[in-house]
Amino acid sequence: MSSGPTIGVFDSGFGGLTVLRALLPLVSSAHYIYLGDTARLPYGSKSRETIARYAVESAHFLEARGADLLVIACNTATALALDDIRHAVNIPVIGVIEPGARTALEALPQIRVPHVPLLGHGSAPNPDVSTHPQILVLATTATVQSHAYRAECDALGMIATEVACPLLVPLVEEGWTGHHVTREVLRIYLSEALTECAPHAVLLGCTHYPLIAAAIEAMLRELGSDAIVIDSAAATARVVARTLNGPTPSNPSQPATFECFATDSVEKFQRLGSIFLGQPIPKVELLDLGG
Amino acid sequence: MSSGPTIGVFDSGFGGLTVLRALLPLVSSAHYIYLGDTARLPYGSKSRETIARYAVESAHFLEARGADLLVIACNTATALALDDIRHAVNIPVIGVIEPGARTALEALPQIRVPHVPLLGHGSAPNPDVSTHPQILVLATTATVQSHAYRAECDALGMIATEVACPLLVPLVEEGWTGHHVTREVLRIYLSEALTECAPHAVLLGCTHYPLIAAAIEAMLRELGSDAIVIDSAAATARVVARTLNGPTPSNPSQPATFECFATDSVEKFQRLGSIFLGQPIPKVELLDLGG
Repeated sequence: MSSGPTIGVFDSGFGGLTVLRALLPLVSSAHYIYLGDTARLPYGSKSRETIARYAVESAHFLEARGADLLVIACNTATALALDDIRHAVNIPVIGVIEPGARTALEALPQIRVPHVPLLGHGSAPNPDVSTHPQILVLATTATVQSHAYRAECDALGMIATEVACPLLVPLVEEGWTGHHVTREVLRIYLSEALTECAPHAVLLGCTHYPLIAAAIEAMLRELGSDAIVIDSAAATARVVARTLNGPTPSNPSQPATFECFATDSVEKFQRLGSIFLGQPIPKVELLDLGG
Repeated sequence: MSSGPTIGVFDSGFGGLTVLRALLPLVSSAHYIYLGDTARLPYGSKSRETIARYAVESAHFLEARGADLLVIACNTATALALDDIRHAVNIPVIGVIEPGARTALEALPQIRVPHVPLLGHGSAPNPDVSTHPQILVLATTATVQSHAYRAECDALGMIATEVACPLLVPLVEEGWTGHHVTREVLRIYLSEALTECAPHAVLLGCTHYPLIAAAIEAMLRELGSDAIVIDSAAATARVVARTLNGPTPSNPSQPATFECFATDSVEKFQRLGSIFLGQPIPKVELLDLGG
């Protein structure tokens, strides 16, 4: 086990392994404890109260297990239960939503300078549209309904259009990441979204989406958009590194270690999880959180 | 409330409403209590023990609420927990798997007569393939992995090929029942399945699939198959009617009544459930089963 910090990473399933994947090389001095609450996924169809209760139970487990810092690698739990989790534990808690939104802001410096429209151009342009970065957020229905990304973008002076893409998670889980059906579904979702906004950045608001980030970017270009694609998983990993005083140098002789817990379906977790983590998961321990 | 029997109908979500939809006109003297355990769906990704525990809790609720007969309108719960439920309650319990398989058998009488191949035809034909009905079962991954349909078909002298179609539920829930993407996904699933078998009947082994039965049948024809399509929901309703001594005559002055309970997401249950039931759901009561 590593001599560095212990970082707890929590998700309702294995999607949060894309966040762990981004963390491993960036904070390689750490030991990671990943918990996927697979017995109770998906959180997306559940109420705020239920999600908060589930997430707090998982947070308590990770804190009791020795986590010095907690990463909520789950957009739904971040959107609906981040405050509950922060109140429930005595360690710092980092969600996935603020890092993604902040990364969008930092990646779009030129747009942050307000553009003063020339006079005499007929109807006055919408000042919001001309002076603030436009962000298209792709997410699950539950995350969109929470409007957590919109609130975060608002607070940072950006205008968010949130679009629910319920088929993308099942397509990724079917393994159709490079499949023509996935491209067609992306074409439908994105072309409809692009009638609603002209985004400077597209924010991937679901931990499954990094696996189709390239397909999303390619479809944006095909549809004539030059929006940059921002991966919340990578953004969150950078915030964790910053919180722990910067990235730790990669040390091949002592790479980051991790252990995985799931509340159900250990076999599925290992099989699908390895794709999300980008490396084999040698062992998954079954955990009973009740419920 | 009706003066006839009270029938409890249970599913992990609202898919089982296709079974209730088939029951309402067939046994119209009954009062129905529908319970969707939406807080803990989908059952498909969970272990047998967890599913059995959830299903038994729901069965106890419906029995305590006055059900005289229990319909498990959920393929996963039928496949993995029918015996547990039967042991846990003191009322008759009807699942969706046996009715579907029996309907296939009854619909294919000509194939039940063993065909004796002519002598002198080179290599001997496979007796299984030539003399037994071939059934293609479309279902979720969990139902396929349980092999419950294969076991039921085996017992009835039919040969089942079970194919997991994990994208069909999300496509139906997206409302894309007549969509070209759904047709394309069906083309992929069915053309692959038809390389494995030449079915006489295709059994819809998921309560969501009746909503795309027409699309499935059309794609089978396009791919050159004349297999009949059997809807487990309708088959189950017929078994319930038989168990209660035949269909009750439709009485417009006293139509069947129903009440709905869900363990979460009452709004989503009402919105999506109405599509599955084919009529508005005026009220859904929230039920806390714990977990």
